[in-house]
Amino acid sequence: MNCLEKRILRDGVVKPNNVLKVDSFLNHQMDVQLLDEIGAEFHKRFADCNITKILTIEASGIAIACSVARCFNVPVVFAKKSKSINIDGDVYVAEVESFTHKCKNQVVISKSFLNKDDRVLIIDDFLANGCALQGLISITESAGASVEGIGIAIEKGFQIGGTIIRNLGYRLESLAIVDEMDAEKGSVRFREQG
Amino acid sequence: MNCLEKRILRDGVVKPNNVLKVDSFLNHQMDVQLLDEIGAEFHKRFADCNITKILTIEASGIAIACSVARCFNVPVVFAKKSKSINIDGDVYVAEVESFTHKCKNQVVISKSFLNKDDRVLIIDDFLANGCALQGLISITESAGASVEGIGIAIEKGFQIGGTIIRNLGYRLESLAIVDEMDAEKGSVRFREQG
Repeated sequence: MNCLEKRILRDGVVKPNNVLKVDSFLNHQMDVQLLDEIGAEFHKRFADCNITKILTIEASGIAIACSVARCFNVPVVFAKKSKSINIDGDVYVAEVESFTHKCKNQVVISKSFLNKDDRVLIIDDFLANGCALQGLISITESAGASVEGIGIAIEKGFQIGGTIIRNLGYRLESLAIVDEMDAEKGSVRFREQG
Repeated sequence: MNCLEKRILRDGVVKPNNVLKVDSFLNHQMDVQLLDEIGAEFHKRFADCNITKILTIEASGIAIACSVARCFNVPVVFAKKSKSINIDGDVYVAEVESFTHKCKNQVVISKSFLNKDDRVLIIDDFLANGCALQGLISITESAGASVEGIGIAIEKGFQIGGTIIRNLGYRLESLAIVDEMDAEKGSVRFREQG
């Protein structure tokens, strides 16, 4: 069992409707030491990929992405969820539906920060239905860059996102895959990974 | 001249209407090494404050806040801009108007993550009219916690925010205070700080 799985068992809270609250350490309050352990683990797993850029999406992916980027000594780029007046018109765009927030967002990345020579590691905190990831993959490929890997902190294994992304042939590593949760018992069952 | 001022002169772009683009290193693409230098500088400046928590607001404050928190070895909490179904009802709320996005947001923090014993250092990337900061101060004081200091990467010295916050008696440190920008010349003039 890795550091994140242990922490989920200790401090995660299972709520009805398959909500796993990890907001005391991962996506509202954040334990930077844990983030750095997660960063080191992704660095180990993708060390052979010659990563040139870490790509994530605001907001809760940013903290993990920075810890990963520090290990690889490469920049982070985060996709923005609405078009700001500070982003030039020259952007890559994808439409992303959020499972958590029940809404659609356009996510954009300035064309200045992704190019055909980039070898991209996509990082995010959660993977559920995979829509956010599909948007980031779409943007990466629009830039002519390559998706070398995808690192997710917590995958909801009982939702379709992970299966879709793996079926598409991407190298997806999730530190914790939750296959079952029970709000009444407060229990979480992780998928065993080799 | 500190690391951030140097970087602004090298890679910042001055646009019309007093827009300073730093999105190649600070708030879209992010240079983690620079973030860590900024974190170390804030740690030095607020080392005497017994900080227990770093508070910021999504999205672009998160990366800097994490680098600061690493130096202090304390958690980060970031205020969320819209109410998520994953946040319990028990939240502190403030209304914040964004200069950049020309819109109002409710920002919320779960009551679980701020309490009366917290000694808070508020961190953000930009200070312009100060509305975001006022919201974070309001939330901190609603929790009965103390605002020990405020660390800003870039303050627009020709806008009112910094003056308001200092007049209110808060200890505000901005690494770079831009007193004048000229889009035609592409020039930036920093305030001299002691």
